[in-house]
Amino acid sequence: MLVVMQHSASDAEIARVVEAIEEMGYQARPMPGRQRTTVGIVGNDGKLDGSRFTAMPGVLEVIHVTQPYKQVSREWKAENSVVHLPGGLTIGGEEVVLMAGPCSVESESQILGVAHAVREAGAVILRGGAFKPRTSPYSFQGLGRKGLELLRRARQETGLLVVTEALDPEGVDLVAEVADIIQIGARNMQNFSLLKRAGRAKKPVLLKRGIAATITELLLSAEYLLAEGNDQIVLCERGVRGFDPATRNVFDVTAIPVVHKLSHLPIIADPSHGTGLRDKVTPMARAAVAAGADGLLIEVHPDPDRALSDGAQSLAPAQFVELVRQVRAIAEVLGRRVAEPAEVS
Amino acid sequence: MLVVMQHSASDAEIARVVEAIEEMGYQARPMPGRQRTTVGIVGNDGKLDGSRFTAMPGVLEVIHVTQPYKQVSREWKAENSVVHLPGGLTIGGEEVVLMAGPCSVESESQILGVAHAVREAGAVILRGGAFKPRTSPYSFQGLGRKGLELLRRARQETGLLVVTEALDPEGVDLVAEVADIIQIGARNMQNFSLLKRAGRAKKPVLLKRGIAATITELLLSAEYLLAEGNDQIVLCERGVRGFDPATRNVFDVTAIPVVHKLSHLPIIADPSHGTGLRDKVTPMARAAVAAGADGLLIEVHPDPDRALSDGAQSLAPAQFVELVRQVRAIAEVLGRRVAEPAEVS
Amino acid sequence: MLVVMQHSASDAEIARVVEAIEEMGYQARPMPGRQRTTVGIVGNDGKLDGSRFTAMPGVLEVIHVTQPYKQVSREWKAENSVVHLPGGLTIGGEEVVLMAGPCSVESESQILGVAHAVREAGAVILRGGAFKPRTSPYSFQGLGRKGLELLRRARQETGLLVVTEALDPEGVDLVAEVADIIQIGARNMQNFSLLKRAGRAKKPVLLKRGIAATITELLLSAEYLLAEGNDQIVLCERGVRGFDPATRNVFDVTAIPVVHKLSHLPIIADPSHGTGLRDKVTPMARAAVAAGADGLLIEVHPDPDRALSDGAQSLAPAQFVELVRQVRAIAEVLGRRVAEPAEVS
Amino acid sequence: MLVVMQHSASDAEIARVVEAIEEMGYQARPMPGRQRTTVGIVGNDGKLDGSRFTAMPGVLEVIHVTQPYKQVSREWKAENSVVHLPGGLTIGGEEVVLMAGPCSVESESQILGVAHAVREAGAVILRGGAFKPRTSPYSFQGLGRKGLELLRRARQETGLLVVTEALDPEGVDLVAEVADIIQIGARNMQNFSLLKRAGRAKKPVLLKRGIAATITELLLSAEYLLAEGNDQIVLCERGVRGFDPATRNVFDVTAIPVVHKLSHLPIIADPSHGTGLRDKVTPMARAAVAAGADGLLIEVHPDPDRALSDGAQSLAPAQFVELVRQVRAIAEVLGRRVAEPAEVS
Repeated sequence: MLVVMQHSASDAEIARVVEAIEEMGYQARPMPGRQRTTVGIVGNDGKLDGSRFTAMPGVLEVIHVTQPYKQVSREWKAENSVVHLPGGLTIGGEEVVLMAGPCSVESESQILGVAHAVREAGAVILRGGAFKPRTSPYSFQGLGRKGLELLRRARQETGLLVVTEALDPEGVDLVAEVADIIQIGARNMQNFSLLKRAGRAKKPVLLKRGIAATITELLLSAEYLLAEGNDQIVLCERGVRGFDPATRNVFDVTAIPVVHKLSHLPIIADPSHGTGLRDKVTPMARAAVAAGADGLLIEVHPDPDRALSDGAQSLAPAQFVELVRQVRAIAEVLGRRVAEPAEVS
Repeated sequence: MLVVMQHSASDAEIARVVEAIEEMGYQARPMPGRQRTTVGIVGNDGKLDGSRFTAMPGVLEVIHVTQPYKQVSREWKAENSVVHLPGGLTIGGEEVVLMAGPCSVESESQILGVAHAVREAGAVILRGGAFKPRTSPYSFQGLGRKGLELLRRARQETGLLVVTEALDPEGVDLVAEVADIIQIGARNMQNFSLLKRAGRAKKPVLLKRGIAATITELLLSAEYLLAEGNDQIVLCERGVRGFDPATRNVFDVTAIPVVHKLSHLPIIADPSHGTGLRDKVTPMARAAVAAGADGLLIEVHPDPDRALSDGAQSLAPAQFVELVRQVRAIAEVLGRRVAEPAEVS
Repeated sequence: MLVVMQHSASDAEIARVVEAIEEMGYQARPMPGRQRTTVGIVGNDGKLDGSRFTAMPGVLEVIHVTQPYKQVSREWKAENSVVHLPGGLTIGGEEVVLMAGPCSVESESQILGVAHAVREAGAVILRGGAFKPRTSPYSFQGLGRKGLELLRRARQETGLLVVTEALDPEGVDLVAEVADIIQIGARNMQNFSLLKRAGRAKKPVLLKRGIAATITELLLSAEYLLAEGNDQIVLCERGVRGFDPATRNVFDVTAIPVVHKLSHLPIIADPSHGTGLRDKVTPMARAAVAAGADGLLIEVHPDPDRALSDGAQSLAPAQFVELVRQVRAIAEVLGRRVAEPAEVS
Repeated sequence: MLVVMQHSASDAEIARVVEAIEEMGYQARPMPGRQRTTVGIVGNDGKLDGSRFTAMPGVLEVIHVTQPYKQVSREWKAENSVVHLPGGLTIGGEEVVLMAGPCSVESESQILGVAHAVREAGAVILRGGAFKPRTSPYSFQGLGRKGLELLRRARQETGLLVVTEALDPEGVDLVAEVADIIQIGARNMQNFSLLKRAGRAKKPVLLKRGIAATITELLLSAEYLLAEGNDQIVLCERGVRGFDPATRNVFDVTAIPVVHKLSHLPIIADPSHGTGLRDKVTPMARAAVAAGADGLLIEVHPDPDRALSDGAQSLAPAQFVELVRQVRAIAEVLGRRVAEPAEVS
């Protein structure tokens, strides 16, 4: 951390900053420059809150040199982390993993129908919300435990693994009984009570980027999971808030190579929420895999025009078949392959 | 709700939209125009998810005419809602209510010292975090129950009411035992499990706007509280994410008159988080009150340079005294007055 | 256009809106609904400024049904527009066109060196700024006419076509003498005097999206060119302003399929400005082509560490060779091919 | 400027950075830390483009310590700059200056009518567009020279000074003949050819912040004017692009105290464009003056519902009278006064 002094800072002001640093148990290293003095802080273990210096007299700004996260960083662990799933499936290795299914579990026939369809098309993991976070209290909130039960049945019938969302600490335990991956949704990326509980679960976690979260904040939320002992983490880019109503969100495809450089964790992409528009899902799925995504999360509904939520961005099964065909070819250009269905015990 | 058809939409496509509407139990009203046809949906009770039409063949876009919220709206209740607090204090009436205190409760001497100082300066409610949502797992996370205990003591000693944050459903009960107002923080504005629990608490709720929440989303989160039966709600503008690093957030002062027009709920402003910069807090507190804010939430610390969190945006007690003096004069221009300390039973 | 009345609007208020519409020479079509009345405007030729209704008594909001642009839209012209360049090169057809070169023309040896290198690697158009729009008046502003002269020489020597930016109306004439494509930069996307002049030039125009321009605004700026008679237009996505300092801009790859749906104009992508980070250029070039981009604009510098501008985002020639290899394979997956060098007369 | 090396940077990589700095004629000052080495650059005169270091091997990031602007900064000139206008009127001193008038000059009766009305209400400067930058080529583009002529007549009749916009370098000369202040609009904030010409005009310039411009970029655009010799500059906050459709723009009131700290230049506020909503103009005018604005720019139209542009955000004359009354009272709280009409020679 560096404390940059104003051009006009007095010697007394500089001395006070030095003193404040030393009082906290660190070493201060003043570096006088032609235009102004900068004071470096040595021995900072990352717990230091630099904001306390910002408003001291004579201080121009405080600059954080070290990244605030640790265990998620590439500097901490150079090789890619690989998440291991039942049946030998992995995320973060050579394979590109396709997760697909409806926004919400609506009925037995719906979820079983989609599950068979997406398995046939090439998906290996079934998505589907049992507990739905909805902006309005009057929107459909999911089938709850009944939805989990239907997911369990779909898993048994098709051999697909299951990813589904937990909304609160108690929900983590319920979801963990059924799902192979516990999803933390975008609205809950900084629900730290939820993160701590998920960090103690014995299941992999899919952590979606918040609607206005920086990459640093996403990585710090993943750090909560690691700090609790869970290192089976998959990150997910799903679009951030922008100014243009032409799309529901701005799908930040660049986040994929950015995360890959900063962190050893795998990252997948959700072009369904990322764009919010059905006819943009396939081109942006191609783009995400071309940028290096380790997997895709795609909304598929047997009859999108009648979906209880997110119909406008769901693919019909036939459209998903075509998506898989195209994505497979893109993956091969990058020397990767789309994961084949695993056998579930 | 209106479904706007493309210029080139066929009669069959229009008929299919009409049919879809009627299948859901609503009336469809096609309105042919010179350039294109629009289909109105009559009898929509707000539960209808328009997204299912967006991707139907021949549809250009879906337009929501009715606001998605109900009980929070001015159309539902024309007169201002007033939140009633112990000792006769009210929020949402003529008075401008000042809440002040440290970001975090750090120690008994700190919280008692600040409490006396802000009470003397003119605050009537003490703020101070016991449970702190922190971006990094390695940052100070608050004193927890011990912090609540210290707030209770400060309340007894000074007669100030207390507002403090709950982070999860269980925390709501703990906080409700001590606090006069339960705070839902910006990161949790769409933590719906938390909102539902707070909606069932018998205490007023301070709901802060999320870092990238629209006004509509803020009002829908408040609707969650109302839908559970809690109508003692205070909204809070605290800055949204922007592109300019010159300030920590973009303090959206206009949200104040916007909320006042759309809703009957009171709204206060937090210029400390809104700007993130100590020397901008007082001018922006003036601005917020000039725009019609029903109160202010201000961070005050006895020694901001040594605060364990948010030091850069906290005022020293003497600066807060000056803020109150200025705000008082602005309130009078608007025919309002700064609330005087209440007597707590 | 639709004028939506408030729930509480009186008959007199509705009548006043109807009257206002008819006074302007359009037909008003009131549509009473269960919750509120909507008044449609028929015969609106796109010149009507709806904002005048917004503040009339009883009006809730005004909704624009028709897109504000005409000639750029797919509804106006269903088939793709193809831009024709000397030597038979086209943009907007099957080929993916690679434009590459330095941010600024710095010297004869620099520009000739890069030109030969990028031609060998597979580029068919040379980019390089002679007139540079710089945020600071103290930054290098380009070589001006001397830079144009060097571009002319590079064109002659290598057979590459040339794209370079014009900053003002007079500059359009200077640039048009040398360049095959006149570039309008992001900062000037709404410099309407410049657009009008470029619309009267007899050369194709590369129009870059403004840093915070919506797709609609981009298309309306292109409409300025078409309205002046120039239909040889190439659009360019180059990143928009976002909140995350992890990248220089948010590279909005989704803009590519969005533009392709709304408009018949070709669109290319500039991942160099889009990301601002050298090691993100190649993955995002792959992503852009995978999303359907009709070409790429890439910064290449013989010695990026010593570039006078934009060094951090420029590729070294060897990196560009690798980019072309990868992009070629992605284009083939989509049934396209990277354009081969043309013969210039 | 500081070049921060990666934790793993080798001695050779550090040496290469040092060498690169010295080759450019500056001194390098390597500062080894516990976690990584930082290399300071001494003697940097602000012309150095740090981006060339960003991508050198072993470099983590480059940090700009010195602000990139000079003459606009408070460090350059500590006391407030005051802009002097005919008749003794000043901007940037004790007075709060009110500029008002229609978006566009539409006719003689319109502009004379508004001019008399706003003068009576307390405005001292008449605004009104003769050359209008419009997003669509099919929107009303202003009366041009005829509009300037009408502004000249209004100035003579009422004694109001005149501010009006120039769209291109030639327009600067035309506008300078009539106007007391040349306006550079938001879309042209980085039209550097226009800035250079305005910097050579002998008239004060009103420079509006671009729709997505940072404060630093605004100040650098003002630096263009200063660099050409024009120090009679008034900045203007007019709203930036945001994500919430509830308002046309996000009116960044905090920009006012931010600019006042960084720069000696005066800054006024335009709540009409800032909010885009008529009923938000008066509360936000109060807020802007409460935050320290040196003046206001307000759209007033004799019959807003029939305005040819921006009707939804224009005040009727009676509403402006009330705005002035309220703003006058706020100004007095801050120890300022609203400027009285000057006598024009």
